[in-house]
Amino acid sequence: MISESDILNCFQHLVEDKKDTLVLVGSGDDGAVIKSQNHNLVHSLDISKINTHFPNNSLPEDIAYRSVAVALSDLAAMGAKPSFISIGLTSNEKDINWYKQFTKGIESILNKYQIKLVGGDVTFGEINICVNVFGYIDENILTRSNAKPGDNIYITGQLGRGRQGLIDWSNDKKSSFVQHYFRPKINFNKSKYISGLASSCIDISDGLMKDLGSICKLSKVGAKIFYEDIPITNDIDDLSYGDDYELCFTSPKIYEERFNKKDFFLIGEITPGKNIELIKDNILVDFKKNGWDSFE
Amino acid sequence: MISESDILNCFQHLVEDKKDTLVLVGSGDDGAVIKSQNHNLVHSLDISKINTHFPNNSLPEDIAYRSVAVALSDLAAMGAKPSFISIGLTSNEKDINWYKQFTKGIESILNKYQIKLVGGDVTFGEINICVNVFGYIDENILTRSNAKPGDNIYITGQLGRGRQGLIDWSNDKKSSFVQHYFRPKINFNKSKYISGLASSCIDISDGLMKDLGSICKLSKVGAKIFYEDIPITNDIDDLSYGDDYELCFTSPKIYEERFNKKDFFLIGEITPGKNIELIKDNILVDFKKNGWDSFE
Repeated sequence: MISESDILNCFQHLVEDKKDTLVLVGSGDDGAVIKSQNHNLVHSLDISKINTHFPNNSLPEDIAYRSVAVALSDLAAMGAKPSFISIGLTSNEKDINWYKQFTKGIESILNKYQIKLVGGDVTFGEINICVNVFGYIDENILTRSNAKPGDNIYITGQLGRGRQGLIDWSNDKKSSFVQHYFRPKINFNKSKYISGLASSCIDISDGLMKDLGSICKLSKVGAKIFYEDIPITNDIDDLSYGDDYELCFTSPKIYEERFNKKDFFLIGEITPGKNIELIKDNILVDFKKNGWDSFE
Repeated sequence: MISESDILNCFQHLVEDKKDTLVLVGSGDDGAVIKSQNHNLVHSLDISKINTHFPNNSLPEDIAYRSVAVALSDLAAMGAKPSFISIGLTSNEKDINWYKQFTKGIESILNKYQIKLVGGDVTFGEINICVNVFGYIDENILTRSNAKPGDNIYITGQLGRGRQGLIDWSNDKKSSFVQHYFRPKINFNKSKYISGLASSCIDISDGLMKDLGSICKLSKVGAKIFYEDIPITNDIDDLSYGDDYELCFTSPKIYEERFNKKDFFLIGEITPGKNIELIKDNILVDFKKNGWDSFE
């Protein structure tokens, strides 16, 4: 039987000798001590649970990478630069190799985004990963609550790739979509670029309709979006599926020329209304008929 | 069937209108934004899992309170002043009242230590609470790695009360020990007092023998402690049981007069050795005979 110490040892190389200008006290003590920074701290957390957030036979490296990536996505949505993470890992896997592979996935994403692991806790039980992410605001804070009628609405990439990735993976098919599902790319460069230009921002984790709905609800506005302008993978359900981790943001029309069409897709505009109107073939799509909820 | 939104609504009153000088962006956005502080940040996390860290028929208020308290204990062990927390809650309870009672326990401990809840995530599954705690260092950082031979060893309270509390609770017996088990008092005042005087510190969560062992291991020293000087509740097993959340710390002998005997129990001294020697009736106790591991 492996012990909690055996598991913690798998993480040891990721935290040791990492004391530097950021981490004053690292692994092995009661807590991590992070040097005071001159910027406001952004903190978010995401739980990834087996059978809910990833299939139960996913590779441990992929589970690890995906769990951290989806949490980091919230930092991008806030306009924050990622700095460090901590992990609460619950797992009932009995093979120490599972943990070694899990930490490989963690190491891979730490290197990808040049961030540090500063602490964690492990316990035995149904696989459940609570990832805490931390970043700093360089420029403006991007919230969900400041969209104004007349603002343009953009998304940063094609929707439905995560959904297709899970389908391909379930069918043992290799595709770039599978990579997109397990190792979504987090748009920190785009987030930084838009932070001075956007009036509101959210990451599309729960589907465009719901996440744009959150912007509308918190900003007390409505939205009109055009189906033909939205880059999708398969069909209209890509708008409500989620798992894409692209950004959806709004920006005053005066900045329109600042957004190139390759990286930023203009899909509609904010209205003074109370609902999201989806226009397809010049006709208003009935949400309820399509099984969607309004955001209210 | 209750939804994640229903659960989040139970927490809403704890996070709304809490925007102030500390929390610039609170609930409802992708992340919380914490105002830049002039002090180093201390961060720790603890997972509390049903059947492992608390019995499966514990009251939700108690589960909530205890989960946060045991996490805060790590801040006290670092000499940090608690400031804010976030919570990753996994639960398969189907009754919304369970969540309402859970948040009452959270509110109770937020008020007790004057700290803020800045964010969280919820998902469905086996009950598992990942509590993230944050504090700031006012004076010195208390680590585990700076104990020196000749330093005195102190603990801040009687051992075995948590253990007795769990026994009493299992027997439906009301006692102050039950309160101690579910709602341990975290020693922030003592932590602050000792922060300028202690050479090392740890909280006694895993039992004195193991936790003092961590100080010895990380400080590369040994220890000699005297059974008759250790305040206990029942018997010698109180030294290895844990769940007390008292502090164990070391301090140079020159400060001995600064520690009153009511609040700080002098139980032994750090040695140049490699083991913890427990002396009882002037005789060295054989650890292995008692079923304990050495810390090495």
